[in-house]
Amino acid sequence: MKLIEDANKEALSRILEAEPMLLDVVPAHEAIKGLKERMILHAGPPIKWDKMCGPMRGAVAGAIVFEGWAKDLATAEKMAAGGEIEFHPNHHFNAVGPMTGMTTVSMPVFVVENKRFKNRAYCAMNEGLGKVMRFGGNDESVLNRLRWLRDVFGPEMAKALKHTGPLELKSIVARGLAMGDELHQRNVACSSVFLREIVAAVANVSTDKKVTADVLDFIARNDQFFLNIAMPMAKTMTDPAKGIRGSTVVTAMCRNGTEFGIRVSGTGDQWFTAPVEMPEGLYFPGYSEKDANPDMGDSAIVETVGLGGFAMAASPAVAGFVGAGSPSSAANFTRAMGEITVGQNSEWTIAAMDFAGVPTGIDVRLVVETGMAPTINTGIAHREPGVGQVGAGVVKAPMACFTQAVRAIAKDLGVS
Amino acid sequence: MKLIEDANKEALSRILEAEPMLLDVVPAHEAIKGLKERMILHAGPPIKWDKMCGPMRGAVAGAIVFEGWAKDLATAEKMAAGGEIEFHPNHHFNAVGPMTGMTTVSMPVFVVENKRFKNRAYCAMNEGLGKVMRFGGNDESVLNRLRWLRDVFGPEMAKALKHTGPLELKSIVARGLAMGDELHQRNVACSSVFLREIVAAVANVSTDKKVTADVLDFIARNDQFFLNIAMPMAKTMTDPAKGIRGSTVVTAMCRNGTEFGIRVSGTGDQWFTAPVEMPEGLYFPGYSEKDANPDMGDSAIVETVGLGGFAMAASPAVAGFVGAGSPSSAANFTRAMGEITVGQNSEWTIAAMDFAGVPTGIDVRLVVETGMAPTINTGIAHREPGVGQVGAGVVKAPMACFTQAVRAIAKDLGVS
Repeated sequence: MKLIEDANKEALSRILEAEPMLLDVVPAHEAIKGLKERMILHAGPPIKWDKMCGPMRGAVAGAIVFEGWAKDLATAEKMAAGGEIEFHPNHHFNAVGPMTGMTTVSMPVFVVENKRFKNRAYCAMNEGLGKVMRFGGNDESVLNRLRWLRDVFGPEMAKALKHTGPLELKSIVARGLAMGDELHQRNVACSSVFLREIVAAVANVSTDKKVTADVLDFIARNDQFFLNIAMPMAKTMTDPAKGIRGSTVVTAMCRNGTEFGIRVSGTGDQWFTAPVEMPEGLYFPGYSEKDANPDMGDSAIVETVGLGGFAMAASPAVAGFVGAGSPSSAANFTRAMGEITVGQNSEWTIAAMDFAGVPTGIDVRLVVETGMAPTINTGIAHREPGVGQVGAGVVKAPMACFTQAVRAIAKDLGVS
Repeated sequence: MKLIEDANKEALSRILEAEPMLLDVVPAHEAIKGLKERMILHAGPPIKWDKMCGPMRGAVAGAIVFEGWAKDLATAEKMAAGGEIEFHPNHHFNAVGPMTGMTTVSMPVFVVENKRFKNRAYCAMNEGLGKVMRFGGNDESVLNRLRWLRDVFGPEMAKALKHTGPLELKSIVARGLAMGDELHQRNVACSSVFLREIVAAVANVSTDKKVTADVLDFIARNDQFFLNIAMPMAKTMTDPAKGIRGSTVVTAMCRNGTEFGIRVSGTGDQWFTAPVEMPEGLYFPGYSEKDANPDMGDSAIVETVGLGGFAMAASPAVAGFVGAGSPSSAANFTRAMGEITVGQNSEWTIAAMDFAGVPTGIDVRLVVETGMAPTINTGIAHREPGVGQVGAGVVKAPMACFTQAVRAIAKDLGVS
């Protein structure tokens, strides 16, 4: 159908024309209009407290104590259960967050702007590995790290970014792909390249060498640091493609640990949801599938722009880490995702595939026709609050989201 | 022949058991016993001024002015031609240097120690790209950079390395291989990982934030920074394998721009030399094969331990950069080098080959039998002094070095 083809061509070209720049780090309430006290933004499509999974409840309780709305976790849980906290998806506020995806007023957020279309997206700082709020952690060590990010790290990054000026993100991603990142479960190269870009500025704006050392060390010791930049980058790329009538291109995929949600260009802000699936992957020593929480996080926004599972070929090492088969067959995932996408990104290429571009622009029709759901590389959280990450794996987006979307667009175009 | 097999097994195990650590940066005269005024160490096997190629003469003249032995380049050339300068190979003084490989008294050098065998090797700092002494550059910009490296960068690195303590180099290389480095023409990942390891220490030991920023920026902007650490690392790994009677394993490969030289375990410090070949590769805009100097530098020491051309499979991007064919066929180089080596290094693996170890321990017998000479990834210098790098390519070690070595060992064992 020509209307759909043209609409998808337009959607793809808007995604590819994006010029995402990292501008700043500011407290969330300064950047995010409408974000206020006793409001928590979470990953995935809308969800109420009573449907939230264990790690998200744990993160919520931690965020409430972090913001000083309750004195301890028990009180915090009561507040959340008692309706004293307003919950909204990050995506409704131009934000994204990995795993539980907590965003609250005082957390520092990266500000990414798509220079081409002038839209912005926001994401809190990546906390590193181990016990962290994004995996449901909420003890004092977790909250103290968040306090340091708010009081020390965020302000220093803001000064450093004023010193460097806006950082062009597409070229950092291009370099990272040539260095084995797929930008979802492996961000070590982009995190390193980001450190190279910012290091002199951090030193230059310093007023205290201990602070400089701590800030640089925090970036240097966090292999996933760049994920929380790649995510708002991806959101700024897909948001301009929203609302093109007839377009069957996916503009967002996200999960709240209970439900998976997708948005499709032709249907604007509507969510198509289905129960999340369980990742298949590898577990850290001492953990197994029994401990795993189902799929969670806004991070699947990176697959929406051709990264993560779609760029597996760039990252044979990650194929092993997520238990997706032999590293030498990593390209098979990328080739398969080529079957459900409308084009390639010639600025993000994969050397091992002779510089083919990453498959970009998921077409819900192709997903339904081929029966091949998008592959997402993901971390796996413990299903209980407060524990943290227990593994990493690969998960499929549920087919029901895509069939609903196809029906909705068919109905809109009067072809059902 | 069992004596040879056993000797080669011993040589390989000494190479693999190495524990190279980066200890320090000190002025060359402090580290290198016997290095004195009016003495220049150069890349490759022994060579006199009258046989030196253009870029090496350019570098020699620059080094003489840098050390203050002459007031200008013209006087410096006259001194060199008049026998006032003593020339020796780096390898005769436990040192290595890329391309022209200049090492003189006041240059800061990395100190690498093989903790297992207690031997050390040294290498001057990498100057970055553009007009640099290692490619024959010798103007004021080149000399001023060397002065800054001597007066500012070297001392700061020394302080930082005392703060971190010895850095374990094998694991940095392992991480770099998973991030697309082959450690000869591509060191961007290892340079980034090195920055991550040293960054907090540099900030912590600082007495001046401008110096901290300059030092960190210099590392951050130099994709080849780590080459000059990888080279002495490789030398500390192969030197303990020298002098095992009957062993046909190569312990050094190097070139002075005129001759290629190899050392083989069973024949100790003896050089087997032949005229260098011309690299086949890609030229920077405005340059062609007509401008190229033949093969040069001690850097082929990295191929001697299974990196560079031997690890091409880790680095599909570099296969394109050096003009070695399609990136997707990079693994063919690594497989071919597997035919002329006695083993693999299980600590240095290639994800794209399902974590096969890099082929290690070049056997001169296998080179001669198969007719396959070692593949070396190399930079290409302009053949005139003072110009600099004009391209990058792949070059073969000359077969004559290997046939001489086979004959010498056969003679020694009485089997010729």
